[in-house]
Amino acid sequence: MDYEAYFKGELDTVRDEGRYRIFTEIERRCGKFPNATRYVEDRTEQVTVWCSNDYLGMGQHPEVLQAMHEVLDDCGAGAGGTRNISGTNHHHVVLERELADLHGKEAALLFTSGYVSNWAALGTLAAKMPGCVVFSDALNHASMIEGIRHSRATCRVWRHNDPAHLDELLAEYGPDVPKLVAFESVYSMDGDIAPIAEILDVCEKHGAMSYIDEVHAVGLYGPRGGGVAEREGLMDRITVIEGTLGKAIGVMGGYIAASAALCDFIRTFSSGFIFTTALPPAIAAGATASIRHLKASELERARQRERVATVRRRLDAMGIPHLPNPSHIIPVMVGDAKKAKRISDWLLDNHGIYVQPINYPTVPRGTERLRITPSPVHTDGDVDRLIEALSDIWSQCELARRSAAA
Amino acid sequence: MDYEAYFKGELDTVRDEGRYRIFTEIERRCGKFPNATRYVEDRTEQVTVWCSNDYLGMGQHPEVLQAMHEVLDDCGAGAGGTRNISGTNHHHVVLERELADLHGKEAALLFTSGYVSNWAALGTLAAKMPGCVVFSDALNHASMIEGIRHSRATCRVWRHNDPAHLDELLAEYGPDVPKLVAFESVYSMDGDIAPIAEILDVCEKHGAMSYIDEVHAVGLYGPRGGGVAEREGLMDRITVIEGTLGKAIGVMGGYIAASAALCDFIRTFSSGFIFTTALPPAIAAGATASIRHLKASELERARQRERVATVRRRLDAMGIPHLPNPSHIIPVMVGDAKKAKRISDWLLDNHGIYVQPINYPTVPRGTERLRITPSPVHTDGDVDRLIEALSDIWSQCELARRSAAA
Ligand SMILES: Cc1ncc(COP(=O)(O)O)c(C=O)c1O
Ligand SMILES: Cc1ncc(COP(=O)(O)O)c(C=O)c1O
Repeated sequence: MDYEAYFKGELDTVRDEGRYRIFTEIERRCGKFPNATRYVEDRTEQVTVWCSNDYLGMGQHPEVLQAMHEVLDDCGAGAGGTRNISGTNHHHVVLERELADLHGKEAALLFTSGYVSNWAALGTLAAKMPGCVVFSDALNHASMIEGIRHSRATCRVWRHNDPAHLDELLAEYGPDVPKLVAFESVYSMDGDIAPIAEILDVCEKHGAMSYIDEVHAVGLYGPRGGGVAEREGLMDRITVIEGTLGKAIGVMGGYIAASAALCDFIRTFSSGFIFTTALPPAIAAGATASIRHLKASELERARQRERVATVRRRLDAMGIPHLPNPSHIIPVMVGDAKKAKRISDWLLDNHGIYVQPINYPTVPRGTERLRITPSPVHTDGDVDRLIEALSDIWSQCELARRSAAA
Repeated sequence: MDYEAYFKGELDTVRDEGRYRIFTEIERRCGKFPNATRYVEDRTEQVTVWCSNDYLGMGQHPEVLQAMHEVLDDCGAGAGGTRNISGTNHHHVVLERELADLHGKEAALLFTSGYVSNWAALGTLAAKMPGCVVFSDALNHASMIEGIRHSRATCRVWRHNDPAHLDELLAEYGPDVPKLVAFESVYSMDGDIAPIAEILDVCEKHGAMSYIDEVHAVGLYGPRGGGVAEREGLMDRITVIEGTLGKAIGVMGGYIAASAALCDFIRTFSSGFIFTTALPPAIAAGATASIRHLKASELERARQRERVATVRRRLDAMGIPHLPNPSHIIPVMVGDAKKAKRISDWLLDNHGIYVQPINYPTVPRGTERLRITPSPVHTDGDVDRLIEALSDIWSQCELARRSAAA
């Protein structure tokens, strides 16, 4: 078999569908977010990033950077081992305590990323509990799907954000069957939010464990940034809260927060937790500093809400269609992979505005979009330039507008 | 079902088998490796770490730290996005070029860890190529096993380091069947090294792709630290070389190096690559600095070899049994989980010597051991103290000695 020819052929198919991905190479400028330097062939250009998941700009926060500089000098670059074999640093332990406190849980467990935390935690729970059935929201993130798939447990998919359908499916199984209900709070591509209380009612009715991914909510919602479940006073009713340290927290890593026994169980049995080098101590310290700051400060969240509202209002005034939702994510719908890419390229090349087109497999085909994430670091001038450029390309490409009244 | 009771019961079983893991909480002291501060209840103690996988002490190298400090100030804490959505930083691109060069390949692809690189690359190759059969060495690392398992491809396990057995298994499949042979260079727990040339002969005979995990060899073997395959002049015959940035490189992250088409294929189709926040730019920059240093400097490797030889010689003189092997890893065999833990605890509590006991599932039951990793940062005094303490506990526990002549 000619392997190279096979790889090239598969890539050609992707190219033909207009969804071959060329990564935009940038350097975000610390202290000047959302500005970044873009590398393009033999030159560089200045751009404004409108699609970062460093939602609050914490990646440039002085407290975060200071903690990282200090611990880099204190403990060195890497952890030097897996958690079990010399890799447990004091800063991991401190961060785990901070996370447990953030979510009002007995314990927390760190992973190298949010992806790994979902994959490893769901995979281990579903595989180890004999006869476990997983109930997965239809729009769950790839990392959850892969974890469930890996476990080889029976998986029932319930209609997105539909507690009644979940109820139906759960009712098919007796009280002795271990049940695990997995869903997200903020869905990252549509920006809609799960009816958490209703889902928990159904879970409790059937004696199911609940597992929530708050990756796009931690730091952003709730009085201390504990997520949507904190805002709605529901954290104590959830079995496992999963989150990332790589988005609003601004650094890297993932975690679960849950009972001490559950965390200890995952710690003891999860391959993806055990057999990997621990996070660098400086990364853990940076995350701790960020979480502590966001527990105490409402400033960033308030400013973000205001920025999001401003961009929405301005888009509406121009009739540029975006998905309405109750979150901080603004999906401007295009509905075609090639067109989304062309708009994005044009914004980047002509206006220095960077909004990545989102295409399959991240979103279903036909729902390609520009996903805009306004943050506290975007100025009024940034917003003006974004709106003008979008309006311009909307006219050029003769894209549909919505009347301001609609 | 009572989930909490279930978790607790499973943990009790582990406790009864004497393999419940209590993580040793330390802070390695940058500039003073292998010394670290141990946190124990309400106090701290000074310890010497003898079980780190920061094999060359690069985690405290001034060039690595300087690169990280600079990029932290330049680009901020986190990447702020997945590689496709605003997360590709210039420092990732530079590191990927450096890695491709290190292994003499067209391209390289970064992952968040070595674990994820194995899981994602093997999982994607084996799942996507229709009818692919994977041939896996019996002692492959958990991350490779999980990747293969995840793919649901047929997996044939060949006897550890046995090219003849591999040959037999490969011969069962016709030329049109895609074949993927996965193995390691240095096996981390026994420290033995694969007969790479013979394995490649067999792969080539049957038209199979070869995939080597050089996680415990990158930085350590070969004139530029390219691994055992570099040392033996075999890199160009291997389809995929996988490595970590978290062990001898001293930082964090993982990668594959291969043809441009293969890397592009994984980049395009691998869930574990696509759907996760990219490594922090400062981490990438630290890894690049470390690799560049180790490409040019033989100092650390030479000093490590000398330290390893010294510890071996001293153990032999005391008759303390260790697995003979051609690598830098010294497994001191105990053969019992509880005993290994007791020895380790005693070394730590009485001598401030930290060697983690290695038990199931990391090694088979009955082969529990202390795994000692001498490094350039261990002084003669450190070696003296290690040997004296081991000899002492060997007498106290009446463990078997080997005559020095044996
Ligand atoms: C819903 C969701 N869960 C988990 C992840 C993975 O988190 P991380 O980027 O920390 O791997 C992501 C995005 O990357 C996500 O969107
Ligand atoms: C052989 C082998 N491959 C891969 C890994 C995973 O690499 P990382 O620690 O970077 O996740 C390890 C150890 O952690 C290993 O021993």
